[in-house]
Amino acid sequence: MSRSVKGESLPDKYLGGRGHTIGTNVAGTAARSVSHRKEVAMTQNRWGIAGAGFIAGMFAWDLGFTNEATVTAVGSRDLAKAERFASERGPMRAHGSYEELIADPEVDFVYVAVPHSEHARVAELAIRAGKPVLVEKPFALNARQAESIFELAKRENVFVMEGLWSRFLPHMVKLREVVESGAIGEIVSVSADHGLRFDPDHPEHRLYDPALGGGALLDLGIYPVSLVASLLGDITDVSAFGTLTATGVDAETSALMRDTAGRHGIINTSLSTESSNRASVNGTRGRIELGYNYMIPSDLRIVSFGEGNPAHGEKVEDFIGAVEGGMGWRFEALEVARCARAGLRESPVVPHALTLKTLRIMDEIRQQVGVRYDAD
Amino acid sequence: MSRSVKGESLPDKYLGGRGHTIGTNVAGTAARSVSHRKEVAMTQNRWGIAGAGFIAGMFAWDLGFTNEATVTAVGSRDLAKAERFASERGPMRAHGSYEELIADPEVDFVYVAVPHSEHARVAELAIRAGKPVLVEKPFALNARQAESIFELAKRENVFVMEGLWSRFLPHMVKLREVVESGAIGEIVSVSADHGLRFDPDHPEHRLYDPALGGGALLDLGIYPVSLVASLLGDITDVSAFGTLTATGVDAETSALMRDTAGRHGIINTSLSTESSNRASVNGTRGRIELGYNYMIPSDLRIVSFGEGNPAHGEKVEDFIGAVEGGMGWRFEALEVARCARAGLRESPVVPHALTLKTLRIMDEIRQQVGVRYDAD
Repeated sequence: MSRSVKGESLPDKYLGGRGHTIGTNVAGTAARSVSHRKEVAMTQNRWGIAGAGFIAGMFAWDLGFTNEATVTAVGSRDLAKAERFASERGPMRAHGSYEELIADPEVDFVYVAVPHSEHARVAELAIRAGKPVLVEKPFALNARQAESIFELAKRENVFVMEGLWSRFLPHMVKLREVVESGAIGEIVSVSADHGLRFDPDHPEHRLYDPALGGGALLDLGIYPVSLVASLLGDITDVSAFGTLTATGVDAETSALMRDTAGRHGIINTSLSTESSNRASVNGTRGRIELGYNYMIPSDLRIVSFGEGNPAHGEKVEDFIGAVEGGMGWRFEALEVARCARAGLRESPVVPHALTLKTLRIMDEIRQQVGVRYDAD
Repeated sequence: MSRSVKGESLPDKYLGGRGHTIGTNVAGTAARSVSHRKEVAMTQNRWGIAGAGFIAGMFAWDLGFTNEATVTAVGSRDLAKAERFASERGPMRAHGSYEELIADPEVDFVYVAVPHSEHARVAELAIRAGKPVLVEKPFALNARQAESIFELAKRENVFVMEGLWSRFLPHMVKLREVVESGAIGEIVSVSADHGLRFDPDHPEHRLYDPALGGGALLDLGIYPVSLVASLLGDITDVSAFGTLTATGVDAETSALMRDTAGRHGIINTSLSTESSNRASVNGTRGRIELGYNYMIPSDLRIVSFGEGNPAHGEKVEDFIGAVEGGMGWRFEALEVARCARAGLRESPVVPHALTLKTLRIMDEIRQQVGVRYDAD
């Protein structure tokens, strides 16, 4: 039998990754999260989580590693599920609808962790209630949905951000610093890959379901696509190949991108294989190599090309992007609070333009590959 | 100033790579090669090298690490260059033309190490003389040239092989064994990259010259393309992006391939950056990761996906493909002699079909990218 991710067993895989410090498993750390909450002060950022699934649980768990934020409520369409979540991850209040969750006076910020197909609808509810909102990636099913949400948020003067949590991790902050410093010269190409094997014998998994916005690209491919989008300029060309599942979503997608300056982006994503999950930013004076599973806390190798004899002039710097406790989801939550309190309507780290650019590329890839959602 | 490869300083770079054992530099080992030749027996395979450049030198140097083959002659259009080569790499005879070299009665096998644009013509001379011939990669400028040479070789009943020397290196032999064993299941995708920076301030380099078959794809990209071609089935789709130099060859080429079974190939090659030069073969039950500079003696990591909990079921095996002395060019030379003496007209390791498949893919990529040679 092949290595597989059944149901939502994904966290074990991630928690087993290297380059970050995690003491125990999700169940074990829930208790730790509770003990943290005893120190909660009234100045904390109070979060309500829409959704009571895997990602909701990871977010709640990670907020247990900071004293600056807490989860005060969870909402699900299934009250029993919300109550179970609240008792496992709490103390927190449980609501049987997203509307009730959002209306809860002890909820300052809303985290949308519902299936992809519901992101836009629930984000809209929070914005209409005037509450700053963090929407799990992918922000929406397509660029049109995202544009509509951003327009609403602008009208309502409410902060909204896509939960591209990786961008706040230490190694990704370092990557941007290195690129901006000019240490690797001009970018020539960005290559990135993210594949995890989801057992095709379990086609009931949400990633196999087109109605839930399934497929490799939207859930996994967004990491390589957004990395390329964030480092390249305006994308003028996209070319993609896809191999679909029997359910009509993409099991395997490969795509090329090119910007106005002729820089190349090369991405691959898969539900059929756990690929090497590496990325690299290649420049005229050096390159940055991202280690295994670069979308979680990971390491970087910065290679600066030497002058003259290439074999001897090379300079290599290893940067270990460790996060103390948790997986680093809390950083995006702290950013939302910081921005919203400062009166910003978007974050400079995950600006609306990046979310739109990424979705526009993914729209084009999906069209070429032949994956269509009802919302398209 | 950026890291650069000026003129033919490339060997220093390669010699500085990891994963293989090299005692000294090219100049230093030439002497070692000479001392080996003292043990030469009459039963040795006697090679004549057409061309007296960098690759010719590497080949001669590497043959110094075996007692089964020797270089007896070198030929160049420039007799002085041939004589210099012979005195540095000898003892061997120097000829002022390829015709004389090939006619030399002490030359049993011919190695064609002339510029890409001359491969087909010189290979033809050797075949017409009835001497088994090894043609440095790329075998020809395009598939049409290669077809013509293979047809001639068939008519003349002469052995001919493309010098895809990497395929004989220990880690590549291991790679094929692992794939054939089924240990990584069915192949889902093959991803490979080869980029080396050639200083754009030195556009006189042969790789910048379209008349010499310049560009990244033909010289460097052939490694990733042939790796994909060797592991995937019949290629049905190719899509490529290229960014060209002022001289009209490809500085940066990225391409996607797909075979009849929906398996993906993703390659990137560059003259503008030294990319991470890694490759990976991704399967349904595991993957093979090829280390830095996988086209020279290098290492493999074989990851077998575990059952059940992915974090704990994974099995990792590291294979170090070291070569004792030299870079392993001699293996292809020994294969030519073995095959030709056994009455074969092609090698099962680098069959004519692989050379043609690779060139047909490269023809298609070049057409899409807009790189055209006079021979096209």
